Amino acid sequence: MERLVMTPGPTQSSEEVRGALSIKNTNTDLDKDFFKLYNDTCKKAKKLVNSKDSKAIIMLGEAILGLESACASFIEEGDRVLCIDNGIFGRGFGEFTDMYGAETIYFRSDYKRGIDVDELEKFIDENGPFKLATLVHCETPTGITNPIEDICPLLNRKGIISIVDAVSSYGGEFISMDEWAIDMLIAGTQKCLSVTAGGTLVFLSNRAVEVLENRKSSVRSFYANLKNWLLVMENQKFPYTHSDALINSINVALDRIIDRADYVQRHKELAKKVRDVFINSGFNIYANKDYSNTLTAIKMPEGIDFDHMFNYLKDEKNILIGGSIAEFNGKLFRIGHMGENAKDEHIYIVLKALDEYFKHMNLTLEKSLHIEFAKIK
Amino acid sequence: MERLVMTPGPTQSSEEVRGALSIKNTNTDLDKDFFKLYNDTCKKAKKLVNSKDSKAIIMLGEAILGLESACASFIEEGDRVLCIDNGIFGRGFGEFTDMYGAETIYFRSDYKRGIDVDELEKFIDENGPFKLATLVHCETPTGITNPIEDICPLLNRKGIISIVDAVSSYGGEFISMDEWAIDMLIAGTQKCLSVTAGGTLVFLSNRAVEVLENRKSSVRSFYANLKNWLLVMENQKFPYTHSDALINSINVALDRIIDRADYVQRHKELAKKVRDVFINSGFNIYANKDYSNTLTAIKMPEGIDFDHMFNYLKDEKNILIGGSIAEFNGKLFRIGHMGENAKDEHIYIVLKALDEYFKHMNLTLEKSLHIEFAKIK
Amino acid sequence: MERLVMTPGPTQSSEEVRGALSIKNTNTDLDKDFFKLYNDTCKKAKKLVNSKDSKAIIMLGEAILGLESACASFIEEGDRVLCIDNGIFGRGFGEFTDMYGAETIYFRSDYKRGIDVDELEKFIDENGPFKLATLVHCETPTGITNPIEDICPLLNRKGIISIVDAVSSYGGEFISMDEWAIDMLIAGTQKCLSVTAGGTLVFLSNRAVEVLENRKSSVRSFYANLKNWLLVMENQKFPYTHSDALINSINVALDRIIDRADYVQRHKELAKKVRDVFINSGFNIYANKDYSNTLTAIKMPEGIDFDHMFNYLKDEKNILIGGSIAEFNGKLFRIGHMGENAKDEHIYIVLKALDEYFKHMNLTLEKSLHIEFAKIK
Amino acid sequence: MERLVMTPGPTQSSEEVRGALSIKNTNTDLDKDFFKLYNDTCKKAKKLVNSKDSKAIIMLGEAILGLESACASFIEEGDRVLCIDNGIFGRGFGEFTDMYGAETIYFRSDYKRGIDVDELEKFIDENGPFKLATLVHCETPTGITNPIEDICPLLNRKGIISIVDAVSSYGGEFISMDEWAIDMLIAGTQKCLSVTAGGTLVFLSNRAVEVLENRKSSVRSFYANLKNWLLVMENQKFPYTHSDALINSINVALDRIIDRADYVQRHKELAKKVRDVFINSGFNIYANKDYSNTLTAIKMPEGIDFDHMFNYLKDEKNILIGGSIAEFNGKLFRIGHMGENAKDEHIYIVLKALDEYFKHMNLTLEKSLHIEFAKIK
Repeated sequence: MERLVMTPGPTQSSEEVRGALSIKNTNTDLDKDFFKLYNDTCKKAKKLVNSKDSKAIIMLGEAILGLESACASFIEEGDRVLCIDNGIFGRGFGEFTDMYGAETIYFRSDYKRGIDVDELEKFIDENGPFKLATLVHCETPTGITNPIEDICPLLNRKGIISIVDAVSSYGGEFISMDEWAIDMLIAGTQKCLSVTAGGTLVFLSNRAVEVLENRKSSVRSFYANLKNWLLVMENQKFPYTHSDALINSINVALDRIIDRADYVQRHKELAKKVRDVFINSGFNIYANKDYSNTLTAIKMPEGIDFDHMFNYLKDEKNILIGGSIAEFNGKLFRIGHMGENAKDEHIYIVLKALDEYFKHMNLTLEKSLHIEFAKIK
Repeated sequence: MERLVMTPGPTQSSEEVRGALSIKNTNTDLDKDFFKLYNDTCKKAKKLVNSKDSKAIIMLGEAILGLESACASFIEEGDRVLCIDNGIFGRGFGEFTDMYGAETIYFRSDYKRGIDVDELEKFIDENGPFKLATLVHCETPTGITNPIEDICPLLNRKGIISIVDAVSSYGGEFISMDEWAIDMLIAGTQKCLSVTAGGTLVFLSNRAVEVLENRKSSVRSFYANLKNWLLVMENQKFPYTHSDALINSINVALDRIIDRADYVQRHKELAKKVRDVFINSGFNIYANKDYSNTLTAIKMPEGIDFDHMFNYLKDEKNILIGGSIAEFNGKLFRIGHMGENAKDEHIYIVLKALDEYFKHMNLTLEKSLHIEFAKIK
Repeated sequence: MERLVMTPGPTQSSEEVRGALSIKNTNTDLDKDFFKLYNDTCKKAKKLVNSKDSKAIIMLGEAILGLESACASFIEEGDRVLCIDNGIFGRGFGEFTDMYGAETIYFRSDYKRGIDVDELEKFIDENGPFKLATLVHCETPTGITNPIEDICPLLNRKGIISIVDAVSSYGGEFISMDEWAIDMLIAGTQKCLSVTAGGTLVFLSNRAVEVLENRKSSVRSFYANLKNWLLVMENQKFPYTHSDALINSINVALDRIIDRADYVQRHKELAKKVRDVFINSGFNIYANKDYSNTLTAIKMPEGIDFDHMFNYLKDEKNILIGGSIAEFNGKLFRIGHMGENAKDEHIYIVLKALDEYFKHMNLTLEKSLHIEFAKIK
Repeated sequence: MERLVMTPGPTQSSEEVRGALSIKNTNTDLDKDFFKLYNDTCKKAKKLVNSKDSKAIIMLGEAILGLESACASFIEEGDRVLCIDNGIFGRGFGEFTDMYGAETIYFRSDYKRGIDVDELEKFIDENGPFKLATLVHCETPTGITNPIEDICPLLNRKGIISIVDAVSSYGGEFISMDEWAIDMLIAGTQKCLSVTAGGTLVFLSNRAVEVLENRKSSVRSFYANLKNWLLVMENQKFPYTHSDALINSINVALDRIIDRADYVQRHKELAKKVRDVFINSGFNIYANKDYSNTLTAIKMPEGIDFDHMFNYLKDEKNILIGGSIAEFNGKLFRIGHMGENAKDEHIYIVLKALDEYFKHMNLTLEKSLHIEFAKIK
């Protein structure tokens, strides 16, 4: 039994993507071939946000660096920032805005569904103005997708710069950066791209670039300073030595997604099947609506301990699934169906293993998960 | 002709080290096997600084993240910091100390040799006290090695926390962290380790850990906050998702160095041969003494343009060599002989190519570089 | 959709086994390390035939070289050879025995089941004596397993050297060379070992070695002469330059099998599930009994053309399945469940694809193949 | 110290060529993509013999299979065969011609130089007619190259089918199959192609194909029967399961050679440098003229034992060099400079190691080998 990692990120990389890490490396500071590779990778990366106008940047660091970079680069002392909070990640963004000197105002909303745009508009009208707003596309800990297609145009109309954490949706959900007037979108390598952790993809609208260029105070960070990246191609100079291994791996991963035009549809269909299987078998999905298409968060059944389930699956079946964090720790279990893991055969195997576990625990399900999965179209 | 990268970092990785990047990846947040791998890698990493007591940390980011992390984590507003400057990198450290609120006092010294410890002591006595001092082991742009074996004990006696940038010396020079009372030492992956860029190795003395734990103000950064790393193994939790690909590659790279106990001696001997070849052939080494053993910086001969030389070697011979930066741009050329590049056959090839270039330019050398190299023991 | 090769050999190799082909190669004639690797691989290979006494040889050539080597090495002009024929491969063995000068006597038996040992004994008593007998363990074109556990002891009692073609059973079925008194057993790399084609594994009993050593005429071949291999380790000399890449790959493949002690049981269970699925859904298995555990041969349904089915699965689903050969061409389709392909998730995927194909052809099955597969324990 | 294999084959493969072995494998019997790959590889293979008209075949077996196949396929009982013998390999060909029923007539000539074509013509006129002749392009054990550009046209004029063993010259020497009227040329994978052993490349002229098609008796072998290969592409059927791993690796290896048009010139120049170095330093080359360009065979110096030298280089320097065989065992040492080993830096390293060995043995050379190598243009 090969290890099967079915957590909502990091996901397992394909052999091709892992193999791309082992290219013969060069001097990425001096070798113009690397600048071409980097530029080509950025262009491909923009295809997944359907953007012509935005500037793509790939930084060397885990995706959280993207969140911090947004705050470090956009916020000046005392800026009023709207923190849109309907989940743990949305809420947590506020710690970064605080750290970089913002006055953070939280729009707190139901954690069991996506943001209601009307309520949000009302909140903005009553509590604005705001320089920028932070929000999360896919609330990974709870499996919610926020309607950024409605939120970002609203923010734009209100003159608010939108910072979108799309770490666990990029490459799995449809995103239209230009059309939806997103100002900054942040993605990582280890989720739907199924590349090793360590790369942060950032997309900036022209408006966002302008704001960066015109900020008055200096940025209080070097590593998280997006301004250092604005002229990389023009100056043929990176802020620090880049990794051709990682960029090459991202490039191959993007090819794999772009070559199969149906990635959005596939994620959507598989997610629906997974949800239906659990619902039909008597489980409760955490979300009430606005379900994520890249992972599913399910309430732990009565009498089942998550750690026990996790260890059984790991030790007996060599399968890793996710739990959740913070106040959801022990209350939810999560299955990732993003990137390379979004495959029928992987879901089949994990459901079969869960069936065995629940049988082992004398928990009778309304339906067998893996048989139900086979039956659903 | 395979591309031969003979710059002073990034260096070319061995097939084994590149291959180690392509391991089947797991969930590094949840998989205890990864914590074991990380811990094992940290233990091996400590061998190259001959340390028992220090704490090793491997962050996901280019080595400059280590410098910023030092400043972000140790400096509190208004701290007096001694910036030891006998080279571009030493001087540049001061920008980070400023950024994080220090009062930076520069000890400026001759750029053509290592720091004179007596002069430094006098300076400290006259200008102290200092909370911490920043210094560079190997001044990569100019090929100087500073005597950290003398400087750090002095700093320690003076009650100053020592922050050593050993990015281009770690793995090539002998370092004794505990004996020399170094408080923080920073290394990167892409120099003597010959791993792709993207990993920062940090070593902290017990005293340094104590200082971190007792700082009064909160650290104004998340990604550069060393405090988040102090209890990684105890809590079995990283500050962000780590990369098993990278850690595995570092692990293999460390094995390759540790397995050949003579790495210090080999770097030293090869460096001396390279210097002697250039001196015997009529070139001028930039340094007057305290030469680096991991690279050699040579003055450009009269009438030769660095870019022309660089492009000739790249286009005709598929060899990359380094120039220099800042005020040394165009005035020095540099050859790396660190990590995987520190091999007789590589130096032989680059010298032969340089002979051809100089002949092509009608520059008569006193001796042929590659024949001289063959002759020297 | 990755290509999924579900034919009864060649099978797809694991990443580990393919990766083992790319080791840094040495001079296999001179490097004693290679002799150790070869010897170690032979020892492991013997574990799959549960033999202590036999001599293992790994030749550089496709498995059919093993059949020819048996005939070239054992047969002397005019030897009477019993060719046990209940399938295309069994029958074909006779062409090799003829080529090397034997008088070939065929025991022809029902193609839809394994050999009846009583009938065979009667035949031998009436038509013997024979110097040697050729037989096939798994008749790959039709999916039959012969009871070599009964046949070989019988041959031994009758003083007949037994030559067993175990090419598509080795590594999937239980084999006990010593206990069953098998004299020569032939295996290949590309079936249950799931290594690329090009290696032939041969196992010789002590009695067989003695017969080789005492043959009177010279062997009329070099490449197919087993005598050249008897003293490889003693003389530290191969008959020709061997491939360390291939031996290393076989070594890793054997490890993968040996590490999971249950390979016989797994093949058996999965084979039964596959048969039951097809039977329950209204298909006819070709065999009446003595089914192969490494592949299943099923009769083509009325009105379905094999080539059409093959191409649909290849073009629409990127799955390869097998047809059959000779008189069974177009009449049977075959699914391999051997070696790396013997996995639930692979079978699930191929059955789902077949369901789609039959639906596409308006052929109504009694039960859906993949749902039935999910249901069967 | 990485192992450096400087023997005259097998040579070390490049990372690319080894990597090409680890492709995801398919069913080579059924997958048309593989037939395309095979055909493409054959076309590239023909470029190295500068042939338009010939038929290329790649068999699964070590190169000696090519020699046996020539004899098995062309010779009918009692055929008169001319065995051209000026070396161990040329002489040994006669054992195969005998085995397959030929009347073998030896043309024995000076072992220290290439064949004298005038003497050969005289011999043929006096001893002919012959159906075919066997000869060796590069006598690997002694480092002689035979003038096949003169011999084969002569044989053609005399109506004799020419069978050329070009195993250690193919890919290193210029060969013009059509122009020189060669009928069959045999190459292997592990010499100048620098691919693992296990592939035999065979090139057949139209005349040779005709002879095969018209032979009267059946071929007494299956595995060595070239007739089975004549219609592979037409019938889309191989005689046995082929290896896509190996064919892919050969394909990549051919690309590497073809991409650098100067491979003949490079081999020639490096070979001359190696010879001059040894001659200038006081050694004796075995050959008097007609030196091989792919290896050099040098007489052992007085008082030096080959095994001692071999083991010193292996154990102290991790370098493998070759000795010789048969009557030259212990009397010659050989250095390969073929394929991937034909690189300045490799020769430099092996010569430096030899210098150290001879110094260790107190043998004073007239000149230092590696310094002399550096000096020679």
